[in-house]
Amino acid sequence: METFDKNVSKCLAPLYKEGHMAYNFASDNNSGALPEMIDAVRKVNVEHVHAYGGDEYSESAIDCFKKNFGENIDVHFVFNGTAANVLSIKALLKSYESVLCAETSHLNMDECGAPEAMTGSKLILLPSVDGKIKIKDLDEKYIRLGDQHYSQPKMVSITQPTEYGTVYTVEEMRQISDWCKKRNMYFHVDGARFVNAATSLQKSLKEISADVGVDVLSFGGAKNGLIIGEAVIFFNKNLSKDFKFYRKQLMQLGSKARFISSQFETLLSNDLWKKSSAHSLKMAQLLCEKLSKFPEIRITQKVQANAVFAMMPKEWVGVLREKYFFYVWNENTWEVRLMTTFDTSEAQINDFCGIIESLKKK
Amino acid sequence: METFDKNVSKCLAPLYKEGHMAYNFASDNNSGALPEMIDAVRKVNVEHVHAYGGDEYSESAIDCFKKNFGENIDVHFVFNGTAANVLSIKALLKSYESVLCAETSHLNMDECGAPEAMTGSKLILLPSVDGKIKIKDLDEKYIRLGDQHYSQPKMVSITQPTEYGTVYTVEEMRQISDWCKKRNMYFHVDGARFVNAATSLQKSLKEISADVGVDVLSFGGAKNGLIIGEAVIFFNKNLSKDFKFYRKQLMQLGSKARFISSQFETLLSNDLWKKSSAHSLKMAQLLCEKLSKFPEIRITQKVQANAVFAMMPKEWVGVLREKYFFYVWNENTWEVRLMTTFDTSEAQINDFCGIIESLKKK
Amino acid sequence: METFDKNVSKCLAPLYKEGHMAYNFASDNNSGALPEMIDAVRKVNVEHVHAYGGDEYSESAIDCFKKNFGENIDVHFVFNGTAANVLSIKALLKSYESVLCAETSHLNMDECGAPEAMTGSKLILLPSVDGKIKIKDLDEKYIRLGDQHYSQPKMVSITQPTEYGTVYTVEEMRQISDWCKKRNMYFHVDGARFVNAATSLQKSLKEISADVGVDVLSFGGAKNGLIIGEAVIFFNKNLSKDFKFYRKQLMQLGSKARFISSQFETLLSNDLWKKSSAHSLKMAQLLCEKLSKFPEIRITQKVQANAVFAMMPKEWVGVLREKYFFYVWNENTWEVRLMTTFDTSEAQINDFCGIIESLKKK
Amino acid sequence: METFDKNVSKCLAPLYKEGHMAYNFASDNNSGALPEMIDAVRKVNVEHVHAYGGDEYSESAIDCFKKNFGENIDVHFVFNGTAANVLSIKALLKSYESVLCAETSHLNMDECGAPEAMTGSKLILLPSVDGKIKIKDLDEKYIRLGDQHYSQPKMVSITQPTEYGTVYTVEEMRQISDWCKKRNMYFHVDGARFVNAATSLQKSLKEISADVGVDVLSFGGAKNGLIIGEAVIFFNKNLSKDFKFYRKQLMQLGSKARFISSQFETLLSNDLWKKSSAHSLKMAQLLCEKLSKFPEIRITQKVQANAVFAMMPKEWVGVLREKYFFYVWNENTWEVRLMTTFDTSEAQINDFCGIIESLKKK
Repeated sequence: METFDKNVSKCLAPLYKEGHMAYNFASDNNSGALPEMIDAVRKVNVEHVHAYGGDEYSESAIDCFKKNFGENIDVHFVFNGTAANVLSIKALLKSYESVLCAETSHLNMDECGAPEAMTGSKLILLPSVDGKIKIKDLDEKYIRLGDQHYSQPKMVSITQPTEYGTVYTVEEMRQISDWCKKRNMYFHVDGARFVNAATSLQKSLKEISADVGVDVLSFGGAKNGLIIGEAVIFFNKNLSKDFKFYRKQLMQLGSKARFISSQFETLLSNDLWKKSSAHSLKMAQLLCEKLSKFPEIRITQKVQANAVFAMMPKEWVGVLREKYFFYVWNENTWEVRLMTTFDTSEAQINDFCGIIESLKKK
Repeated sequence: METFDKNVSKCLAPLYKEGHMAYNFASDNNSGALPEMIDAVRKVNVEHVHAYGGDEYSESAIDCFKKNFGENIDVHFVFNGTAANVLSIKALLKSYESVLCAETSHLNMDECGAPEAMTGSKLILLPSVDGKIKIKDLDEKYIRLGDQHYSQPKMVSITQPTEYGTVYTVEEMRQISDWCKKRNMYFHVDGARFVNAATSLQKSLKEISADVGVDVLSFGGAKNGLIIGEAVIFFNKNLSKDFKFYRKQLMQLGSKARFISSQFETLLSNDLWKKSSAHSLKMAQLLCEKLSKFPEIRITQKVQANAVFAMMPKEWVGVLREKYFFYVWNENTWEVRLMTTFDTSEAQINDFCGIIESLKKK
Repeated sequence: METFDKNVSKCLAPLYKEGHMAYNFASDNNSGALPEMIDAVRKVNVEHVHAYGGDEYSESAIDCFKKNFGENIDVHFVFNGTAANVLSIKALLKSYESVLCAETSHLNMDECGAPEAMTGSKLILLPSVDGKIKIKDLDEKYIRLGDQHYSQPKMVSITQPTEYGTVYTVEEMRQISDWCKKRNMYFHVDGARFVNAATSLQKSLKEISADVGVDVLSFGGAKNGLIIGEAVIFFNKNLSKDFKFYRKQLMQLGSKARFISSQFETLLSNDLWKKSSAHSLKMAQLLCEKLSKFPEIRITQKVQANAVFAMMPKEWVGVLREKYFFYVWNENTWEVRLMTTFDTSEAQINDFCGIIESLKKK
Repeated sequence: METFDKNVSKCLAPLYKEGHMAYNFASDNNSGALPEMIDAVRKVNVEHVHAYGGDEYSESAIDCFKKNFGENIDVHFVFNGTAANVLSIKALLKSYESVLCAETSHLNMDECGAPEAMTGSKLILLPSVDGKIKIKDLDEKYIRLGDQHYSQPKMVSITQPTEYGTVYTVEEMRQISDWCKKRNMYFHVDGARFVNAATSLQKSLKEISADVGVDVLSFGGAKNGLIIGEAVIFFNKNLSKDFKFYRKQLMQLGSKARFISSQFETLLSNDLWKKSSAHSLKMAQLLCEKLSKFPEIRITQKVQANAVFAMMPKEWVGVLREKYFFYVWNENTWEVRLMTTFDTSEAQINDFCGIIESLKKK
C-alpha cells in the first residue's frame, strides 16, 4: 500500500487553503485522475490509428477486460455513466418494456430523466432504505404480463455498490440473477464504482459479474480515477449486436478511442484498481471510525464501500461545509454523505475531525 | 512556424513501417492529440474541484472563449461533434420544427440518424456539389408555414469548413444569416474544423461567428488536436437557458469538466489554434499542388481547408490504400478524400506521391 | 330522468343471455354509445367540408364548449384518453420537466409508458389510497430546483373523478391549483369521466375547471357515451400555441373532424351530460347500497362517482365473473371494481345481487 | 352502378349554394362517410362488449379481412393514416434503421415529421416525378451496410396508389418486393386509398398485397368512405408480435373497437369497396376527359386512381377556388390537384367545367 500512497500523493490537492473551499469529501467525481491515467494517455499519443475503436490500443484494452471478466464478453466504451446505463437499457429493451430498480437508484434520482427520455422505457421503483432491492419487492412489481396497457417488466437494475455505500453479497446478486433468469428478464448492474464492490467483497471482478449471471454491466471509470470514460460489458455476445449503432445514434461514439481504452487497460493492469479502491475503502473505514466516536453523530448506513452516511447537528453541517463541501442527503434529518477517493489522506480526515472537535468546544 | 513544426514532430507517427497501414491521410480524427493537450490535462490534475463544470479551470477556459468569440456568449462543453450538433438543435427547436441543411452535411450523412432520433426534428435537405448551400435553395424549401401537416422550417445549419474542404466567405455567411434573421430562423454552424475556416479566411474566430450573426456554433476540438471535447457556443444567452438540462438528459454532461475545458483554453491561447491549423492548411495546399502535376489525377474541389478531393485511376486507389488508408468518397467515380492534420509532414506527402510515381512507371 | 331512462333503454344490451358473458359492470369503456351519438354522426354526414377541423360543425361544437367552460378557452379534439393526457404534457413541458401525480393514476398505471416515451418527461409518483393526492406529498416531492441532474417539477396532474371513484372537492382542487400557481407550475386534470365529477359535486363544468385554475383538462368522451373522441381544453390560450403541430406529429389529427366534434356538441347540449352522468351515479349508489347489505362484502372506497370498489369472498368473485365480467383490482385482497354507466339498469343490479344471494345459500 | 349512385345521392352535399364554398374536389378526406358506415356503427351499438378489441364484432371484421387478404394475416385497427404508417415502421425497424421512400411520399411531406419523431428512423428520399420509385434509385441508396455512422436501410415504403394518382402495376410491385427480399428488407405499402389501386388494376386486394410479397400494409378507411379508422395488416404474423404494445404506447388503441372494425367489415362486404372506388375512378376519368378538351389545360399525371393533376391558367385557379376549394400542388407552375370521391356526381363535374367555359368567354 505504501507505494500506492506515495504515488497518489503527487497529485494530492494542497489541502484547505485559507478562504478556499475543498471538495475532497464531496464525491469521487470531484477528484482529479490517477497520475497513471495521464501517463496512459500520453503513451498512446504517438501516431495516426483507426478512429472510433478497432485500433490496436483499444483491442489490447479489450483483451485486458477479458482477462478480468472472462473471455465471452463484448466491451464498448462510452463517455459517462448516464450513457452506460441508458445504453444498456436501449440495447436490451423495447420502448414498452420496463426496468425494475430501487427508488434510490442513480438511474431514477440523478439522470434528469435520461433513461425514460432516451429509451421510452419506464422505471418501476422498488422501496429501499439501504440502496438495495429485495426479492419480495421484485415479486410484488412483477405484474400484468401480456397486458397491453402496462409497460412490461423486462430488466432488473441494481447498483453495486449502492448509492448508499452498501454492497450486495455474492449470494444476494445470485438470487436476483436467478429471479431474472426464471422470468426471462435481463440483469443489469450499474457499476459506477464496481471496483469498490469487488475489493469490499474480496472477490475478482469476474466473480461478481459473469459468475453470478449479470447480463450487462456499466463499468465505471471516472469515479475510480480515470480522466474520462466508462465501459459497457455484455456477458452474452448475442445481446450486443445492435449496440454499436445505438451508441452512435445516442451520441456516445468517441473518435479517438485509444485515449479512453488505454486508461481502462491501465486501471485493470498491475492491480491498480485493487490498490486504488483498497485505499478509498480504508479511508472510509477510518472516517467512519473517527466520526463514530462523537456521540452527536450517528452513522446511518453500513460502510462497505467508499461512502459514509451520517446524521449530525445541523449547525455543524453548515460550518463544516464552509471548508469541506459535501452533500446533505436529507434536509429534514441532516443526514450527509461523505465520500473518500484514491487520494483521500489521513491528514484530511484528521483535519475534518479536528473541525468537529473545535465545534464541540463552542 | 518552425517552432510549431518541431513541437509536433515529437508526437509524429513513425511513418510507414513495413507491413503496417498508416492512417495519416484518412482523417483528422485518426490523429493523436497535440502534445500541448497532454500537458493541459496534466496541469489541471491537481486537486478536488467542483464537478460538472463551475470549477475555476472551466471558468478560466470560458473567459478565454470570450476573448476569442466576444463577451456575450454562453459556452458549454460536450463529448463529441454529434452531440454538439444535436444539442444545438435540441436547445432551439421544438420537435415539429425542421433544419435546412445540405444533403452532403455530416448532420445528414454521418450521424446514424441522431438528429432525428434525439430531437424529433426533420432535416430538410438542400442539393450541394461543393458542400455549401445556396440562398435560392433555401428559398425553395421555405414553404408551408403554419401548415400543421408539415414540419416547420426554423433553423439553417451549415458546415464551415464544409465536408468537401471548401470554405464559405464572410459575405456568404452573412447572407445566410440575414436570410435567417428575416424569417425568425436560427443560424447554426457545424464547426467541427472551425479553426481551419478562420485561418483559411484570415479572420478571427469572432469575425466569422458572432460578427456574421451565428446563433449557435458547434466548435470542434477533437478534429483540431484535442484528446476529446467539443464546445457549443451560443451567441445570445437567451437561447441557452435550457441547455444544461438537455445536455444532462442527452447524456453529455462530463463529471471532470476541467479535463476538457483546459484543453480548449490551451487551443485558444498563444495562437495555438492558428499555428496548428495553418500547418494543416499548408500541407493540404502542398498535397494538392503535387497531385495536380499528375495528369491522371483531377482535383474535384477547391482546396480551402485541410482536405483534398481528387479522382484518380481505380488501380492506384487500391495500391495506395494498402499503405495509406484513406476514404473513397464516391465508388462510381473513384473520387477520394485525403486529409491533412497538425502533424502531417512534407516527408509523408513526398512518400505518398512517390508511390504514385512508381505506379505510373508500371 | 324518466325520459332519459326510456331513451337509453333502446340501446340497452339484452341482459345476461345463457352462456353469454356480460360486461356491464366491467367498465364504462365497454358500453356502446348513447343513441344520441349515432344521430349526431348521421346528422353531420351531409356534404364535403374542410377536413382536419375548421369546418362549421367543429366551430359550432367549440362554441358549445365555450358556453360550458368559459369563453377564454382553446379546445382541440383527439382520439383517446391516452393522447389527451400525453398531449397535455407535450404541449406544456420540456422533456427535462416532470409531472407530479398519484402512483395510482391512469397516467402511471395504464398507459404502457406512453407519457414517458412520447414526451421524455418523468412522472414523480405520490402515494395515494383513495386516488387523490395531498398537498403535503406535493411539498415533499417539490425538490432540487435548478439541479441539472434532476428532472424539474413543472406540472401537477390529478384525475377527477379519480380511478377509485372518489371526487376532489372544489376546495381541494383550488388548493392544488394555488399550490401550482405559487410555484409557476401547471395544473392538469385527467377528466376521462369529468362530467361525473361535476354531477357528483353539483357544479357546472366551468366551476370545477376554469374557476379553480385548471390550466389544461383532458375532457373525456368515450367513457361518457361517445362513440369515440376526447377533447383537450386549455384555459389559457397562450399555452396551446404549439398544440396543433404536436397533435399532428403525435398522430392525433383526425381528418373528418366533424364526426367527433358533433358528438361533443350533443353531449354538452340539452343537459345530456347531466342526465347521463346522473343516471350512472344513481346506479352506483344503488349498487353500493345493495352490496352493503351483505356482511361479507366491504365497500372500500367512498362511492362518489360511477365506481364501486368492494372486497368480497374470493369464491364469489369467480362465480360472479363467469356471468358479469369485472376487474379484480387487488388479487391479494380480492378487492374488485364495479362500474356503472349511462345504460346500467336496476334490473341488472338486481340480477347481480341475486346471484350473490344464491351464492350465500350454498 | 345505378344502385350505388342512388344510394350515395342520399348523403350528397347540396351543391354549390350561393356564397358557400364547396370542397368536393379538394380531397377524399373532405367527404362525409358512406351512408352504410352510419348503419354499421348503429348496428353494433347494442350492448356491452369487451373493450379494446377482442369483441365478437371485431373478430368478425378480422375474418372478413382474411377473406379479402388471405388467411395468414394479422390485422390491427388504428385511428388515422399517419399512425398506420408510423406504427408499421415502429413495429419492424430499430431506431437506427431507415426507410427508403419517394421524396413525394405522404410519409415525407405530410406527417409533420411524425415518422422520425415517433420512431427515430430516418427517411432516405428517392426522386420521383409521378409518385413512384424506381429500382435503380433503390440501388443507389442501398449503401454503407454495417457502417455505424449511417442509418441502415431496412424498409422500402411505397404509396399505392401514389400521391399523384398513379398506380404501380402488379409487376412493378413484385419487382420492388423481390428487391427487398433479396436484401432482407421489409416492404411496406401506404395504402390510404388501396381499394382504388385494386379497382384500377382490376385485381383483388390479395393479389396486390399478399401475393406480391408485401410485409405490412397501411389499409386506409377514412379516404374510402369510413367515418374514421385505418387498419395495419401484417402478412407474416411473426412481424406483429410487438404491435399491440406499440399501438398502445403510441396512443392508437381505441376502447370501443367495434365502432371502427364494423365499418371495415361493411366496406369489405358485398363489394362495397369495389362499387365505391369504381365510382370515384369513373368520375376522375370523366373529369380528366372534360378538362382535356380545354387547350389551356394540361393534364400532368396519368389518371389511374381518383386524382386529376392539371396545369391551368393562374387566373382560372383563383376564380375556380372561390367556389370549389382545391389544392394548388405547385405554386410556380400552377399545377393543381382535383380529387373525386364516392359521392362525386356528374353534375358537379359539369358545373365545374361550366365555370371554366364561362371563364374562357371573358
